[in-house]
Amino acid sequence: MFSNITDTKISKKIVEIVSGNKNLSIGGGSFCVIAGPCSIENELQFSSTANFVTKNGAQLLRGGVWKPRTSHKSFQGLGSVALELVKKITTETNQGIVSEVMDPRDIEELYPYVSLFQVGSRNMHNYSLLKELAQQDKPVLLKRGFASFVDEWIKSAEYIEQGGKASVILCERGIRTFETVTRNTLDLNSVAFIKHKTHYPIIVDPSHGVGVSLLVPDLALAAAALGADGIMVEVHPNPKEALSDGPQALTFPQFEILMTKINRIIEIVGQK
Amino acid sequence: MFSNITDTKISKKIVEIVSGNKNLSIGGGSFCVIAGPCSIENELQFSSTANFVTKNGAQLLRGGVWKPRTSHKSFQGLGSVALELVKKITTETNQGIVSEVMDPRDIEELYPYVSLFQVGSRNMHNYSLLKELAQQDKPVLLKRGFASFVDEWIKSAEYIEQGGKASVILCERGIRTFETVTRNTLDLNSVAFIKHKTHYPIIVDPSHGVGVSLLVPDLALAAAALGADGIMVEVHPNPKEALSDGPQALTFPQFEILMTKINRIIEIVGQK
Amino acid sequence: MFSNITDTKISKKIVEIVSGNKNLSIGGGSFCVIAGPCSIENELQFSSTANFVTKNGAQLLRGGVWKPRTSHKSFQGLGSVALELVKKITTETNQGIVSEVMDPRDIEELYPYVSLFQVGSRNMHNYSLLKELAQQDKPVLLKRGFASFVDEWIKSAEYIEQGGKASVILCERGIRTFETVTRNTLDLNSVAFIKHKTHYPIIVDPSHGVGVSLLVPDLALAAAALGADGIMVEVHPNPKEALSDGPQALTFPQFEILMTKINRIIEIVGQK
Amino acid sequence: MFSNITDTKISKKIVEIVSGNKNLSIGGGSFCVIAGPCSIENELQFSSTANFVTKNGAQLLRGGVWKPRTSHKSFQGLGSVALELVKKITTETNQGIVSEVMDPRDIEELYPYVSLFQVGSRNMHNYSLLKELAQQDKPVLLKRGFASFVDEWIKSAEYIEQGGKASVILCERGIRTFETVTRNTLDLNSVAFIKHKTHYPIIVDPSHGVGVSLLVPDLALAAAALGADGIMVEVHPNPKEALSDGPQALTFPQFEILMTKINRIIEIVGQK
Repeated sequence: MFSNITDTKISKKIVEIVSGNKNLSIGGGSFCVIAGPCSIENELQFSSTANFVTKNGAQLLRGGVWKPRTSHKSFQGLGSVALELVKKITTETNQGIVSEVMDPRDIEELYPYVSLFQVGSRNMHNYSLLKELAQQDKPVLLKRGFASFVDEWIKSAEYIEQGGKASVILCERGIRTFETVTRNTLDLNSVAFIKHKTHYPIIVDPSHGVGVSLLVPDLALAAAALGADGIMVEVHPNPKEALSDGPQALTFPQFEILMTKINRIIEIVGQK
Repeated sequence: MFSNITDTKISKKIVEIVSGNKNLSIGGGSFCVIAGPCSIENELQFSSTANFVTKNGAQLLRGGVWKPRTSHKSFQGLGSVALELVKKITTETNQGIVSEVMDPRDIEELYPYVSLFQVGSRNMHNYSLLKELAQQDKPVLLKRGFASFVDEWIKSAEYIEQGGKASVILCERGIRTFETVTRNTLDLNSVAFIKHKTHYPIIVDPSHGVGVSLLVPDLALAAAALGADGIMVEVHPNPKEALSDGPQALTFPQFEILMTKINRIIEIVGQK
Repeated sequence: MFSNITDTKISKKIVEIVSGNKNLSIGGGSFCVIAGPCSIENELQFSSTANFVTKNGAQLLRGGVWKPRTSHKSFQGLGSVALELVKKITTETNQGIVSEVMDPRDIEELYPYVSLFQVGSRNMHNYSLLKELAQQDKPVLLKRGFASFVDEWIKSAEYIEQGGKASVILCERGIRTFETVTRNTLDLNSVAFIKHKTHYPIIVDPSHGVGVSLLVPDLALAAAALGADGIMVEVHPNPKEALSDGPQALTFPQFEILMTKINRIIEIVGQK
Repeated sequence: MFSNITDTKISKKIVEIVSGNKNLSIGGGSFCVIAGPCSIENELQFSSTANFVTKNGAQLLRGGVWKPRTSHKSFQGLGSVALELVKKITTETNQGIVSEVMDPRDIEELYPYVSLFQVGSRNMHNYSLLKELAQQDKPVLLKRGFASFVDEWIKSAEYIEQGGKASVILCERGIRTFETVTRNTLDLNSVAFIKHKTHYPIIVDPSHGVGVSLLVPDLALAAAALGADGIMVEVHPNPKEALSDGPQALTFPQFEILMTKINRIIEIVGQK
């Protein structure tokens, strides 16, 4: 398959997102930083994080309302209760937010609050959900299934696009391999492939991709140097007390340092 | 395993290599570019490549004398015949060379010609070879087995170090996963892990790591931004006619452009 | 992890299924054969297959009403239209049926027609679906996600069991590995692990597990010899014209021969 | 690839092995049981095991002289010292032995003692070793690399056959996948593929394949039911004190029970 990959120019599809009163264009040459907590836990946690990442250059917030968890005994997200917090904090920071939807019946409820719907890795093959998202007009961040071929990923994007209303941004978040020294294996090869050979904008999630906060900034820089269209990173005021994914969340100082380096890298590789 | 990865400072081991009349220090903060053809095919091919990569900033040459090939019917490398070419061209370019040894009985013959022995991915678990390399004093570039745990890789390095004479540089070259859109999956997560949590210098081989020349430069830039100690890339005057690994070899112009970008990246991330 | 696996006796949970006017006990020492087409395509195809597999010893039918497909352009199953066929043919053959549900909103509609709900491999992590299935009382056949750890699989079963109403049977159907010579890699190791170390009944699907009809009978025999609680196999009157999964469907004669051999194997290993 | 796998009859190559004063034909319809310890540790351990497995129907012994170990600090096998024990015990039991050779320089020394050379999983791509084995005339048991494609495995067999003297028997011993609940994932799909689509005899090693003694017998029975040409299992008088691979070794009683079941299975599937 790989022997006949040639450099035919492909015109990229630019996805427009409304984030607060800004208009973001993903895929058009600028680099987008999405940041925030894994889950929205309470007002203080979400507000402080949102304000900090905004001040340091994030252009879109992230924050989970409903969380897919391996065990039904783990924290499942605040659910609908979080929506008022979403409204308050996005207004306060003049930011939009991307948040995950897991159930086709939740799309309508979540719609007014988000700038971008997220389909999580575990739902990339949930075709009922994809078909329902095809019926609405907000863009969708489609995370790669943790063991999905690039080809399947693109076909899942086509499920969403079939309605002709919703645009898709792809998000690489690590695949499952034999190696266990990190939580997943971030597949930057596929990011390079998508960048050169498809028309989709591609974002990298180094937080899930490597799963260890110490290593997240290095992978974020790698993604920027490689020419990805952006990154999405998890930030928490106190990762040790996070209700989900604490080991991979950056502290505020780690995020601030990362942003300084990212800005210098993207200057070089020609992203603004 | 990954939950308790913390940022204890580890003092890195610097490996000294004599390359022509230069002394290279790998792992001490400078970024090393190793370049050259997959196999040494003939004088013109090797000489032109060696001179070109030297002129464009490569600090060490690469070139296969004996080649491990899946089929016994494929080109197996020139073998001993190539050694005179190695001598001539390394002298001409004032460069050292890294070349692969596959058989413990070949170490002695290859010794006078190389600055750095390479153990290939398929021989990372060839303990007879590792033990024999432990008996000599030149440094060894130990490629990761294409399905080897980081832990096994380090234990293979310890086989070589047990003699107390030879130092080891690790080289990530891609692992085998379910994904087939690229030849291998370059595991930059493990590179970041090794950088932060072990004392070994770590080099990245994006040529084998992604296996598609169009995508090689992006992955090389990613490796530099991530803070690897160097890269090793395959370059060929005419990749389409290469006797081995043509699809992943850079042309001369591709290499030249890559070097310009690499130099700007390593300035930022603090490698010289 | 594997070093401390010891042979503590675990009392198995027996799952009762009503199939026509029979009561099947899965997990209690008898071996259950589930057979039928991948998708229900039309009356002739479904009726002929159902009658043939019944005559040859199948104790439960299978047949897809809604089909998860990688591309939205592929045949998606007949949908609700198939339900009347399900009613007619299960009555005619005095058999129950297992059929896949992909959308939590379809559970209610499918409920009267099936003896056993199936959660497919691509929905093993679809927690909205699992939670909804926890609200009803029919047993659920939970297929393993194609890249899911045994531990995650069991935790998904616990999502279904949390309501205290629905019982779970696990079904191994192959995992995704680097090997491409077969469609998936049937993981009989995990089947043996589940048999010895958990209380869940475990069924094997060699059709998806190997994906090549020529090889399906061998893997079915292997599953029986290993002590699985049953198999689920795809059978089609004319596999070459099947609308889904034709390459892995057994013909009628192949199924008949398989059943003869299976019956002799299960005598030996102590399943009835 | 899998869609055009059809059932063209392939005439199998029968490999003849001299085991004591018996002539074994592997691949001709009879089922061969190879058994013994992982490593030869001392006379008592090897003698007692060899006698026990012989009495219970093993037709060929196994026992490691040189052992490939991940760490240079682990027990590396007795080495040449074990050869006198090999001679004594094979004579005493009237059995041949299969033992691993890791270094091309050891072939000559091992030659007089073995009926069958073994190439271990970690050396399947050690082409220097394969080429040297092609120069001698005893058959070779070629274990699959733990992450090798079936295609690569067969090409490694062709390296050995290129001399026209040595025949090859393939041995599946598990592949490396994401799953960690067992040591490896035994790939019986590939065994079925090799049986139907190549001319090589194929043996299964459930000891390494699953890595947990409790689960070994189930996988051995599965291999027999599937139609493999034999199995190779590790047996130890006291697995807890084994110097290598204790967790996967069968005790004497476990082996005895397994042999009773195996004999009944192979009657059914038509192997003698």
